[in-house]
Amino acid sequence: MTSHPIQLADIEQAAQRIQGHAVETPLLEFHSLNEQCQGRVLIKPEVLQRTGSFKFRGAYNTLASLSPEERVRGVLAFSSGNHAQGVACAARLLGIGATILMPKDAPPLKIRRTREYGAQVVLFDRETEDREAIAATLTAESGAVLVKPYDDPRVMAGQGTLGLEIARQAQALGLRPEVALVPCGGGGLIAGVSVALHSQFPQIAVYAVEPDGFDDTGRSLAAGSRQTLAPGGHSICDAILTAAPGELTFEINRRLLSGALTVTDAEVRFALRWAFENLKLVVEPGGVVGLAALLAGRIALEGRCAVVVLSGGNADPALFAETLLTTD
Amino acid sequence: MTSHPIQLADIEQAAQRIQGHAVETPLLEFHSLNEQCQGRVLIKPEVLQRTGSFKFRGAYNTLASLSPEERVRGVLAFSSGNHAQGVACAARLLGIGATILMPKDAPPLKIRRTREYGAQVVLFDRETEDREAIAATLTAESGAVLVKPYDDPRVMAGQGTLGLEIARQAQALGLRPEVALVPCGGGGLIAGVSVALHSQFPQIAVYAVEPDGFDDTGRSLAAGSRQTLAPGGHSICDAILTAAPGELTFEINRRLLSGALTVTDAEVRFALRWAFENLKLVVEPGGVVGLAALLAGRIALEGRCAVVVLSGGNADPALFAETLLTTD
Repeated sequence: MTSHPIQLADIEQAAQRIQGHAVETPLLEFHSLNEQCQGRVLIKPEVLQRTGSFKFRGAYNTLASLSPEERVRGVLAFSSGNHAQGVACAARLLGIGATILMPKDAPPLKIRRTREYGAQVVLFDRETEDREAIAATLTAESGAVLVKPYDDPRVMAGQGTLGLEIARQAQALGLRPEVALVPCGGGGLIAGVSVALHSQFPQIAVYAVEPDGFDDTGRSLAAGSRQTLAPGGHSICDAILTAAPGELTFEINRRLLSGALTVTDAEVRFALRWAFENLKLVVEPGGVVGLAALLAGRIALEGRCAVVVLSGGNADPALFAETLLTTD
Repeated sequence: MTSHPIQLADIEQAAQRIQGHAVETPLLEFHSLNEQCQGRVLIKPEVLQRTGSFKFRGAYNTLASLSPEERVRGVLAFSSGNHAQGVACAARLLGIGATILMPKDAPPLKIRRTREYGAQVVLFDRETEDREAIAATLTAESGAVLVKPYDDPRVMAGQGTLGLEIARQAQALGLRPEVALVPCGGGGLIAGVSVALHSQFPQIAVYAVEPDGFDDTGRSLAAGSRQTLAPGGHSICDAILTAAPGELTFEINRRLLSGALTVTDAEVRFALRWAFENLKLVVEPGGVVGLAALLAGRIALEGRCAVVVLSGGNADPALFAETLLTTD
């Protein structure tokens, strides 16, 4: 593992940096889910994290690593929502100015929350405007530091703290997870979590779970190199819609992942409702894909112990309500 | 405290009985809630309990205390839902037959779940049929043991285990809660919790929270004796609609409670939605009243540490969806 973009030590340092600022989310077990899956399922509800998703971990670790000069220049991020909130909240805590570029069609709750954390939100049209060009103009004006959503070792190390917690919490229960199901967009979360989990459980099989039509990591794993999807896919999983894996994240994921699974929008909606009824947790579409894969039978536990990461809970109320009503 | 219907020792015994069967729910803290309330708020999310509410604790403790002869006769309970599920699930685990009398207008999810636990569900019409008479007929036929929803020392001791957990978990964080807000119907939960919390934090102020129009415990506390409300009230908090406090529960509550607070349906809906957006927890109307009281400013924390019990999460999907949509 010596050539990985991040090492276990980076994650341990990140854990120290975020301590007292991020929440140590619990590791939960539900009799109903164990029975349903005929195994032992440990839920890591990162919906309970500050800002409602794991993104705060990586954002805080990155911003806390900036030099005094960089802090003065402020930060810039582009994100459809969860990274935006993570960066905005971390920036406020550290007294750093933040500008966030968000698509106009991002869930309204995510836009509102990002503003509430004190960030300056700049909206753009996904169809007609060029995000990179706007970002370039903004950074040229202000000198702001770009905080990438996943392809940055500081971000990946921050997300990896979630894996360290899982390992410690599972060990406290006397358990050794054999499978982990982790939502995957650009791959920063699963890269960090894989490094952490493999350090404690070398035999664990970590699977990326992606929305149908956005299986860039799955295709890249199959091909052995980064693949870019053609545009035009559609999915309700707004938080994890990427066209290609990150360069650094894939460097880790191609070596540590056991494979990738996909789920349909219908399976995601079923899982959202199942989590509502049985886990009493509010999960957003992109955050529930691991559970969706499990409930859809994409992987059979057969008595094994699995960890499922519920990576975010910033569900749009209208979409959530519609999901509860239409599958009634 | 020597003349209380239950003692700390009863709760400690109940804790041993339910161990490994009930979930030790975590004690959660949310930065957003602390900021909102200008204090330190510890959330006890009993929505994560087996069967989705605290009722499993008391039901399991009671059923596990039955003699072999009683077990053979089976159990009977009447309940609009959460006690029903608690008894049905505990009965299944202990191999005891269960019959549950439920009102026809109970939330469909609660009726379905009770059946799924294997109980025989008998529906009756609240308006035209006499629950007590039906129960008397059923017990006369089968000899089944009636499991009361709250006015039984075994039930109260079981619910008290939730208070023991809060005390231990708060102490592990180095905190001494000064206030506790607990949903109150017949008063079994708050009676057990009060005994447990007062044993560890003698100065704590425990408040019953009731729906507007169902403030039987509040009126009884004010009068110094059990008061019965006139019929005709209406509230969405189906789980905690009682006309009078229990005899045994009030014996404890009149001595240990600091007071009672009420919340309106509108405040309950606001809190349901607030919990959805900020805590990512699914709470049912009757379970969220403590949070509703806090958010409505019924009690000012002013830097103090408070515990809020979210007692159940078996929310009807249609009502929940409507709440998300109408307050948008």
